[in-house]
Amino acid sequence: MRVVCPGSFDPVTMGHLDIFRRAADQFGEVTVLVTVNPKKQGLFSMEERVRLIEEAVDGMPGITVDTWSGLLVDYTTRNGVTALVKGLRSGIDYEYELPMAQINRRLSGVDTFFLLTDPKYGYISSTLCKEVARHGGDVSGILPPNVATEIRAKFAGDVS
Amino acid sequence: MRVVCPGSFDPVTMGHLDIFRRAADQFGEVTVLVTVNPKKQGLFSMEERVRLIEEAVDGMPGITVDTWSGLLVDYTTRNGVTALVKGLRSGIDYEYELPMAQINRRLSGVDTFFLLTDPKYGYISSTLCKEVARHGGDVSGILPPNVATEIRAKFAGDVS
Amino acid sequence: MRVVCPGSFDPVTMGHLDIFRRAADQFGEVTVLVTVNPKKQGLFSMEERVRLIEEAVDGMPGITVDTWSGLLVDYTTRNGVTALVKGLRSGIDYEYELPMAQINRRLSGVDTFFLLTDPKYGYISSTLCKEVARHGGDVSGILPPNVATEIRAKFAGDVS
Amino acid sequence: MRVVCPGSFDPVTMGHLDIFRRAADQFGEVTVLVTVNPKKQGLFSMEERVRLIEEAVDGMPGITVDTWSGLLVDYTTRNGVTALVKGLRSGIDYEYELPMAQINRRLSGVDTFFLLTDPKYGYISSTLCKEVARHGGDVSGILPPNVATEIRAKFAGDVS
Amino acid sequence: MRVVCPGSFDPVTMGHLDIFRRAADQFGEVTVLVTVNPKKQGLFSMEERVRLIEEAVDGMPGITVDTWSGLLVDYTTRNGVTALVKGLRSGIDYEYELPMAQINRRLSGVDTFFLLTDPKYGYISSTLCKEVARHGGDVSGILPPNVATEIRAKFAGDVS
Amino acid sequence: MRVVCPGSFDPVTMGHLDIFRRAADQFGEVTVLVTVNPKKQGLFSMEERVRLIEEAVDGMPGITVDTWSGLLVDYTTRNGVTALVKGLRSGIDYEYELPMAQINRRLSGVDTFFLLTDPKYGYISSTLCKEVARHGGDVSGILPPNVATEIRAKFAGDVS
Repeated sequence: MRVVCPGSFDPVTMGHLDIFRRAADQFGEVTVLVTVNPKKQGLFSMEERVRLIEEAVDGMPGITVDTWSGLLVDYTTRNGVTALVKGLRSGIDYEYELPMAQINRRLSGVDTFFLLTDPKYGYISSTLCKEVARHGGDVSGILPPNVATEIRAKFAGDVS
Repeated sequence: MRVVCPGSFDPVTMGHLDIFRRAADQFGEVTVLVTVNPKKQGLFSMEERVRLIEEAVDGMPGITVDTWSGLLVDYTTRNGVTALVKGLRSGIDYEYELPMAQINRRLSGVDTFFLLTDPKYGYISSTLCKEVARHGGDVSGILPPNVATEIRAKFAGDVS
Repeated sequence: MRVVCPGSFDPVTMGHLDIFRRAADQFGEVTVLVTVNPKKQGLFSMEERVRLIEEAVDGMPGITVDTWSGLLVDYTTRNGVTALVKGLRSGIDYEYELPMAQINRRLSGVDTFFLLTDPKYGYISSTLCKEVARHGGDVSGILPPNVATEIRAKFAGDVS
Repeated sequence: MRVVCPGSFDPVTMGHLDIFRRAADQFGEVTVLVTVNPKKQGLFSMEERVRLIEEAVDGMPGITVDTWSGLLVDYTTRNGVTALVKGLRSGIDYEYELPMAQINRRLSGVDTFFLLTDPKYGYISSTLCKEVARHGGDVSGILPPNVATEIRAKFAGDVS
Repeated sequence: MRVVCPGSFDPVTMGHLDIFRRAADQFGEVTVLVTVNPKKQGLFSMEERVRLIEEAVDGMPGITVDTWSGLLVDYTTRNGVTALVKGLRSGIDYEYELPMAQINRRLSGVDTFFLLTDPKYGYISSTLCKEVARHGGDVSGILPPNVATEIRAKFAGDVS
Repeated sequence: MRVVCPGSFDPVTMGHLDIFRRAADQFGEVTVLVTVNPKKQGLFSMEERVRLIEEAVDGMPGITVDTWSGLLVDYTTRNGVTALVKGLRSGIDYEYELPMAQINRRLSGVDTFFLLTDPKYGYISSTLCKEVARHGGDVSGILPPNVATEIRAKFAGDVS
């Protein structure tokens, strides 16, 4: 079995890393899959997102990174992936993930396992981290150190 | 009493059809009302949405289709409609529908009845169907056959 | 079509009355069905609950009262009832009602329409009213006048 | 202690006023803080929003108005504010407010108190009011009188 | 890795079987653990529950059954179990499972994976099945055939 | 203004202490009110609950403890209390607290402020702590040290 943690990871957060590590602990190895929506401009490019994850998981056994821009189930079918692993931060996450998990099972049989985020990371989202960083707030502790450094650089000189 | 099932229906799904049919079963006849937001570009035009619904409900007794682009309660007041019927797919649907139902009652006295979507259609939304179709995924079973055919044609040649 | 508003109504509240009236407005007539669980001791007997409702709906057209102690769908099937109408006060009500509505459809085809409770009654439950009355709190405005009078009498002399 | 009620208030609603008044009742004085996102065009300008609030709270003791366009915790730290007060209309509001409240505590120690909106205003949002007003619906009772007048003027001649 | 599906299973339902099968598909083998609360009288004895599950999973590869009456994490620690698998039927299930999953991780490091129940079983609970069976309703399709037979026998002659 | 944190506190947890401290930080002083339901047997007596809280808050400024067994609003009215402070752990807590907060405002005008529990205590309830302790699990970190000691003693020799 190959297991995938899909997401846009723009950028990867401490909460994501916690899920990757717990998934790898249980399944031996896991592929972090950066999915890209070509119609939606992100803060980091696909290449930057991949590099930031690879740096952040350096030293964590069993985690590799890949990218995909089409239908998620096409990736899983082509690569023999039988399960996805995702984090749930809240009841609202549950409601949003439910239709995706159901349609993915229907389309390809791939199943989704949900892990509850560690309470100490539960409120963190990429969007919230970007909002804090944009205004010069302290993102250490909620973003991995390498990501915190790059996001600060990205917003330096930004006058909003 | 005339009963209305309002929505943008861009496009109509199997879940919508199930609600139309159940509403018509109970109330005898029901008007499916395609509401259009002129500021929001949809995938299908208003004319296409109406035609797709009319084709899909062909043979189901008691269902007619109409359109409206203003305040919903202006339509209901002008046409002597006393109740709306909507489907609820999840707790989050409930939270989003609540303010609309309350304001509609306040503005005009029109009441809203909610039917719980059949579990086998509960995860389907127009948005999710479009997302699947855009990437060439199989939408049969979640969209009526005529809609599935047209949406495939719409996205054929689309390279995303 | 005969429509039923089922519940234990121990006792009926202002919130229940609002649902009865709105259901009757739309469906012409409605039967309030007092369902009794013989294993669960209530505050009011079945006879008292029926009488309190009948007094409270006196003058509201189209509302009758009946009782039942078996499976709800056996009542609806025997009496040709095709729909239930229930109030939803909150997201948690939705979650609790969902399995009941689904099983009732599965067992007999009877469908359930949900009306959202008027915000001014949305926080009221029979349990909360009993709790307030037990401690001598003011239940006027949340219970119909006749019920408020009887519940006060019931708890008079009660030392808790 | 200085307490702040932050929000975009585009425009202020009857529900907001109720929260301001209740916060001032308990804390003696409260600052309504209009936060502006320069990247998001609102219906009313920052100056208009402030003026509309000042007119609407005229005569309510202990309420002042200020503006801020950066990170909220920078405002609270600079001004010695130790608590925020926000209204909760629904379970979904809770889910959205949770990450903000947690990150604000983490960044600066400022705590957030939530008041439950009065049921009679619970379904009102600025967005819903704008939608109703845009189509010429009646916004009296859900917007303060001065706001209702100005929003009608804003949309007069608007053909949508 | 040994994976456990814990529960009271009084009795096992079609929804439970679906989760067992999906967990076994992904993890190769899974232990269904019947947890017993000695202070709470169930409908079926521990021995009956185990037998009903063993009969129902007969022919499904990789599923064994065990029992436990103490703290769940004592079982997992003693048996080298590193993960639990549970089904989520709704947002309310999420809310109830969250504290259990967090405390189990804290006490022993054991992690919990959640699978979303198949929509066609999503409304089924052991409690609801018992309620239907108690009143003579049809439980085929929501309970495995062997369980449906035994529960009917259990309630035969019961006059409630 | 006198502020009250009401609850059954059977027993007080680390999550409760965090709310007491945060309420006292903002309001200067706060009364922890142990409310007792004479019909419901707890694990600890009212006297024990009070003593455990007093020991646990020893050294925290501005926190006193009191008891009450009637309607909460009778206590607040008699003592000039104008606000309650409660913790919210989850969306489901919100749903349960909503009716209580609304009825308390209606009955007496007393308002309720909600603080979101610190994520590191968010999953802790008195019930869960008792369940863990009953089976000999480690409750340090989730219960104050004095409570952890007494609850262990309470369950020592208990064979369940």
